[in-house]
Amino acid sequence: MYALKELQGKINAEINSRMQVLSGNRPVELYIPVSYSMGVGGKRLRPVLLLMACNMFSDDISQAMPAALSIEMFHNFTLLHDDIMDKSDVRRNQPTVHIRFSENNAILSGDVMAFLSYRYLMESKSKRIYQVSELFTHTAIEVCEGQQLDMDFENRHQVTASQYLDMIRLKTAVLLGCALKSGALIGNSGEKEADLLYQAGINLGMAFQLQDDLLDTFGSQESFGKRIGNDILANKKTFLLITALEKGNPQQLKELNNWLTLKDFDPEKKIKAVTTIYNQLNIKESTQELIERYFLTLEEILELVNVENNRMVHLKALVNQMVKRNH
Amino acid sequence: MYALKELQGKINAEINSRMQVLSGNRPVELYIPVSYSMGVGGKRLRPVLLLMACNMFSDDISQAMPAALSIEMFHNFTLLHDDIMDKSDVRRNQPTVHIRFSENNAILSGDVMAFLSYRYLMESKSKRIYQVSELFTHTAIEVCEGQQLDMDFENRHQVTASQYLDMIRLKTAVLLGCALKSGALIGNSGEKEADLLYQAGINLGMAFQLQDDLLDTFGSQESFGKRIGNDILANKKTFLLITALEKGNPQQLKELNNWLTLKDFDPEKKIKAVTTIYNQLNIKESTQELIERYFLTLEEILELVNVENNRMVHLKALVNQMVKRNH
Repeated sequence: MYALKELQGKINAEINSRMQVLSGNRPVELYIPVSYSMGVGGKRLRPVLLLMACNMFSDDISQAMPAALSIEMFHNFTLLHDDIMDKSDVRRNQPTVHIRFSENNAILSGDVMAFLSYRYLMESKSKRIYQVSELFTHTAIEVCEGQQLDMDFENRHQVTASQYLDMIRLKTAVLLGCALKSGALIGNSGEKEADLLYQAGINLGMAFQLQDDLLDTFGSQESFGKRIGNDILANKKTFLLITALEKGNPQQLKELNNWLTLKDFDPEKKIKAVTTIYNQLNIKESTQELIERYFLTLEEILELVNVENNRMVHLKALVNQMVKRNH
Repeated sequence: MYALKELQGKINAEINSRMQVLSGNRPVELYIPVSYSMGVGGKRLRPVLLLMACNMFSDDISQAMPAALSIEMFHNFTLLHDDIMDKSDVRRNQPTVHIRFSENNAILSGDVMAFLSYRYLMESKSKRIYQVSELFTHTAIEVCEGQQLDMDFENRHQVTASQYLDMIRLKTAVLLGCALKSGALIGNSGEKEADLLYQAGINLGMAFQLQDDLLDTFGSQESFGKRIGNDILANKKTFLLITALEKGNPQQLKELNNWLTLKDFDPEKKIKAVTTIYNQLNIKESTQELIERYFLTLEEILELVNVENNRMVHLKALVNQMVKRNH
């Protein structure tokens, strides 16, 4: 059984060798942003999840490597296009592709990454690959729907917690579900096992994204690695803000809305004031409760998967780390 | 055997009913630009070619309809993104998606169209569909490469005729090759027949694009449907301009380069002056010769396809119309 670090190492080696091949392709202007984006790194969580799920049912994970590469390529494709749409200039401490190169480069190199993710996927020799491709396509469409909802929410006055949860399910959780189910199918699991892992991935994704929302306000700067309070400064409609707007009394709502509309403000003061309201409303605790609920469901689902416990040890460690992380 | 108009009717009916389904999907902001773009119309050449190729080998063309829809969706996806990159405001007399909606809409709805084209393709029950999907992916990657080259050429001082021909092969011709080969495979042709149709599509695409270049300068305004001389005004590096730059004498090159760099000019004067140089250099004739050469190769290839002649009559009529068109 392969542990996290081993799998990350394998994936990075595979990405390096693939990017070396790509960088020989013409036109170079198209492919340089692809290897730039894939090279910036990250934790490679999606391909790791895919390989771990395969490893639960098969000792041979090499058969799942094309699909693992594919899902990481797809994830990076979404980052290129999302960063244009969200006007994000920095990702993983590096300039984003549309800043480093150009917006046209980010559009077109993003496009070719979407198709490369199919090319890699179809390299797989697995007899379940057609089913995996259908799941992949279904998931990709949902991820686009999630990104659209996310953009719509920014311009909408009222968003309910349930609408928000639906959005993060589409934007984030389904891809983790797809990773786990695809890995299981390629590892030749039963249909029932594969479906359970899909559901596990959904619950993991929900908990993971909510944890991200939480850390942006309540994390510690050193371990989170980003500046604390960014979401508050950007008026981002996170689960925290939406819940506060649902739970606040008239006085708290008035103050919150005041901070949301104020154009000129001292950033530190705004972060402190909004966090104070969150604290009055126990937003941290209710978010943690919801995360805990998704995490418990995730654990219950994993118990139902019919494999020996020792085949799940690395996956369990990873999901634990992903959700309980403080960075 | 189905003729052009019948097939266009079938495709439009299929697109209408599919777009009605899509328009019920959420979020509507994502799907409205999709049906807008698919509804603007056009000649539906790519799906028609696909169905005609299928019809050469099979009387049942309904099995090829998902792939036909897929290739039209893919083509429209490229238009959405190309129109952003090329800053084109109008297409088929309608505002382009990034103008009518927003640039973010054009990016994201374009993305979902790329994945919808896979969803439609995979609906096919054909046992060759995996091979068709691989060809489709390969082609999509090449189309991105062609678009990148096209953009690069705009900023490059010198482009040779052979580089230009390679660019239009990737940007335009391979998709026609893909349409014909996919149709043949779904109609259960032999591998050799499918490969011949791919080559026929490449030659058709080359002739078709060169004809487009030619008509932009030498067409008649009424029948071409667009203003004549647009490429000249935009300094577009078409086959005509590239050939003129290769063939011109020092005096002609000086005059041509003068018009290319002039910022303030009378449009009619520029069109007339550049066209005069083209005429001195027989650019029209040499472009027509090249088109004719591609067209003859196309005809020779079609002769090699092992089907009864009467099964090819509509395809032959169409390719003739596409290349000999004056509109």
